[in-house]
Amino acid sequence: MASSLIRGKYVICRAGADASESTVITDGAVFQRDGVIVDVGPYEKLKETTQADEVIGGPNFLVFPGLVNTHHHGRGVTTFQMGSCDDCLETWILAGWGRRSYDHYLMTLYTAIQMIESGTTSVMYNHPQTPVSGLEDDVSEILRAFGDSGMRTAFSVYYRGQNRVVYGDDESFLSALPGDLAAGVRKFLAGSDISEEDYFGLFERMHGEYWADPDGKVTVLVSPSNVQWVSDDFLVRTKEYAEKYRTGIHIHLVESFYQKEYGMRTWSKTPVAHLNDLGFLGPELSCAHSVWLTEGDIELLAGNNTTVCHNASSNLRLKNGIAPVNVMLAKGVNVSVGTDSTAINDDDDLLQEIRLLSKLHRQPSLEAPAFNPHQALKMATVNAAQPTFFRDSEGQARIGALETGKKADMVLLEMSSIEEPYLDPDINMVDALLYRGKSRHVDTVIIDGQAVLKGGRSTKVDKDELMRELKDRFSRPQESAVMENRAMVQRLQPYVEKFYEGWSSGDAPPYYVFNGR
Amino acid sequence: MASSLIRGKYVICRAGADASESTVITDGAVFQRDGVIVDVGPYEKLKETTQADEVIGGPNFLVFPGLVNTHHHGRGVTTFQMGSCDDCLETWILAGWGRRSYDHYLMTLYTAIQMIESGTTSVMYNHPQTPVSGLEDDVSEILRAFGDSGMRTAFSVYYRGQNRVVYGDDESFLSALPGDLAAGVRKFLAGSDISEEDYFGLFERMHGEYWADPDGKVTVLVSPSNVQWVSDDFLVRTKEYAEKYRTGIHIHLVESFYQKEYGMRTWSKTPVAHLNDLGFLGPELSCAHSVWLTEGDIELLAGNNTTVCHNASSNLRLKNGIAPVNVMLAKGVNVSVGTDSTAINDDDDLLQEIRLLSKLHRQPSLEAPAFNPHQALKMATVNAAQPTFFRDSEGQARIGALETGKKADMVLLEMSSIEEPYLDPDINMVDALLYRGKSRHVDTVIIDGQAVLKGGRSTKVDKDELMRELKDRFSRPQESAVMENRAMVQRLQPYVEKFYEGWSSGDAPPYYVFNGR
Repeated sequence: MASSLIRGKYVICRAGADASESTVITDGAVFQRDGVIVDVGPYEKLKETTQADEVIGGPNFLVFPGLVNTHHHGRGVTTFQMGSCDDCLETWILAGWGRRSYDHYLMTLYTAIQMIESGTTSVMYNHPQTPVSGLEDDVSEILRAFGDSGMRTAFSVYYRGQNRVVYGDDESFLSALPGDLAAGVRKFLAGSDISEEDYFGLFERMHGEYWADPDGKVTVLVSPSNVQWVSDDFLVRTKEYAEKYRTGIHIHLVESFYQKEYGMRTWSKTPVAHLNDLGFLGPELSCAHSVWLTEGDIELLAGNNTTVCHNASSNLRLKNGIAPVNVMLAKGVNVSVGTDSTAINDDDDLLQEIRLLSKLHRQPSLEAPAFNPHQALKMATVNAAQPTFFRDSEGQARIGALETGKKADMVLLEMSSIEEPYLDPDINMVDALLYRGKSRHVDTVIIDGQAVLKGGRSTKVDKDELMRELKDRFSRPQESAVMENRAMVQRLQPYVEKFYEGWSSGDAPPYYVFNGR
Repeated sequence: MASSLIRGKYVICRAGADASESTVITDGAVFQRDGVIVDVGPYEKLKETTQADEVIGGPNFLVFPGLVNTHHHGRGVTTFQMGSCDDCLETWILAGWGRRSYDHYLMTLYTAIQMIESGTTSVMYNHPQTPVSGLEDDVSEILRAFGDSGMRTAFSVYYRGQNRVVYGDDESFLSALPGDLAAGVRKFLAGSDISEEDYFGLFERMHGEYWADPDGKVTVLVSPSNVQWVSDDFLVRTKEYAEKYRTGIHIHLVESFYQKEYGMRTWSKTPVAHLNDLGFLGPELSCAHSVWLTEGDIELLAGNNTTVCHNASSNLRLKNGIAPVNVMLAKGVNVSVGTDSTAINDDDDLLQEIRLLSKLHRQPSLEAPAFNPHQALKMATVNAAQPTFFRDSEGQARIGALETGKKADMVLLEMSSIEEPYLDPDINMVDALLYRGKSRHVDTVIIDGQAVLKGGRSTKVDKDELMRELKDRFSRPQESAVMENRAMVQRLQPYVEKFYEGWSSGDAPPYYVFNGR
């Protein structure tokens, strides 16, 4: 390791709620040594006061904190590329059963490089259901790939123990299907069954192996997949493990209104209220999606310092709606962002994602909240740092801003793409980045003080070779099981649709009114 | 002019409402002569049956109909770059008064090249209020630039005669302002005043000059800017001119709920109902925005074969909401798309725009309409062709699809960007384009049979030189009047906000429910 002085025409040190709260230095620089930021200030000053092994950047770059993707399921070759067009979550999720298997190392390397190319330096990776027989190997391969790419990774494996076909008891649902179909589904589900003991055992081994070094680039979290997919007992155990190991809990929550409705039918209360009654909410918890929140739910999340990971593209693509981010922010909920591996451009580009949401939450009228670019960048940096558990001994986040003592994770984007042929001198640089910065103009990405991307190309991985290898793997014939599973899911679909007949989003007035009859 | 055979691994000939209605040829080709498509079919067949001067494209390309941007106000250097952050339409529009002046030729050339680079081959350009003293020269320069770029252009100048500060009488509003502020506003407005006679005179001259050649690349439309900005008498005259010259009418309509509310306060009915009572609706009419439509309005638009130009990004950016596109399509309204020069990425990229809207209109639940990529591409091609008035003698559109007899306007996009490292063989190519095609992979654009973009670069314009020239122009000091106007608008803003106090979107239930309290 070594030291470097990273220079930009502008350095965005910290994103705030608006221009008055964001910190931007003109002709600024960041001095880092061994991956830790030692000083930030005007370039002319730091040039005199520091001795860097290397100067990176220059007056043609905009420097900003590395983006943090707080909800991601890996892959690289997307679900769409593997044959699943978007659908309503409840049927789309089953289509995943008919996807071909893939090499976890190569696929993770691919998604990591794509994310780094678009300015992401940390990811909260949530491992989806995979055949349990290879689970230990899969997670090792995934973490090896993230390591090889240079990406900082908050890792978790999610657990699903019940209601895996519809939001209702597996056996009740299966017993009403034609016998051969039910048998096929049972066989498929058995392949990804894991006991609670094995799940927590895996967590403990990973925690010991990967999170031993406090200066390392991996944290390990626990993850009950969603309230309808695990027992209350499992939730309570998760909370205990998180407390014992001082780590975070990552969960999916009211992604669709069907999930909210499951709560009403099961406990006569919302899933958030149920979690609150279990004593499950807390600052260590981060909840992906969280679209169908009542006002009471939002109060509970705010009061417990719980994080919501907003997934704007995914929520639209899978027909789940638009999370009431303006209300959450107004009530003080810590809202972060993630791509959920289903971003608007199907490429995990978090810069495009925060641009999308900076437009999406602009509610009509002069008086309504006008979501602004500063909030969007803050959600992808300062707010997103909290649930990753990259923290110092006092619990302060070590990523998300370019400030003394924090990790040296940052992005250098070509200024010319933003300010040429002209940019009015009154424009704030956070606004400029969010209106006009594009991932293809990301030149350099630094993680832990190391330039993992230079001139738009990975310094760690030969991407052309990676693409060739992926292409070669995918050119091999599909396993026959894939086609059988697809046929099975196609047969299953009408039964699943029938199960949800009569479930509705209710008549609660929406937070956002975008048009009117 | 000459002939060419344009080959693609896939040729999307026509976008339909879904996969069963879209036409895609595998290893296909388009044979065109002198800008008109002579034949479309399998490449191997056309190679034998046609004699082309040139073969363009090949097995690495996806060929699709050129995109049609049906609502655009020019520029290139955007309103944001010129200093206006997005705001609510009613105040944002005034911020435009404080923008520096610019060279219309260079700016139009810039926006045209940007659009061509992202696959747009035709644009409906609607000329905004400019100082009337230079209007004739401005429009000549703009059409010269579109011509030089190769872009097909449906041209109109918009007219505003009343309610130009708020949606209420100019003098009533101004007389309540401090005297010096009112005087400043009066002086500014006088600079863009044009008489009705001069307006229609200009239209007739342009119609004669530019639309004389039925095979030319320019049509000329009339354009009352919006119902609140012109008198009923002017609307009626517009309709007469359109009828006399067999051309189209382009208007803005219920962009904000304030505009709908203006109708209720003025006529006790919606602006659409008012237009219907005037006999103004018809197949020659295209209406930008059209967000705040009642169910009755939608019936009227459908019944009159009127086009709605949907501007998804602009409607979000300027806090106007989301147009009920799913309902309009279900009722049979011809819905097209446009960027309004305020696209999501601030760059008039229509491919990105239709990707945005293909996600935006995915309403929650299994039963709700699931807007699909085919509809999005259809809106930007087949549907968008109608209001441009590029038609044959029988009134059939000559653009928007790759079919015998239509104009040879098409785009070639690198397939590798879409299908590498893998694409499931079951995926339809329209879906693939809409999920994954990016403007930076547009290689060749053909308009009227001529390749105006090759290898991603304009064949008509030296873009580097253009950028240098624009940079040079914008480096000159701002006119002092710009700063004075900005100060004036800043003083004006609180009065404008006060004017709209108490105006509301009403309590009509929304068409789209994305979340719930």
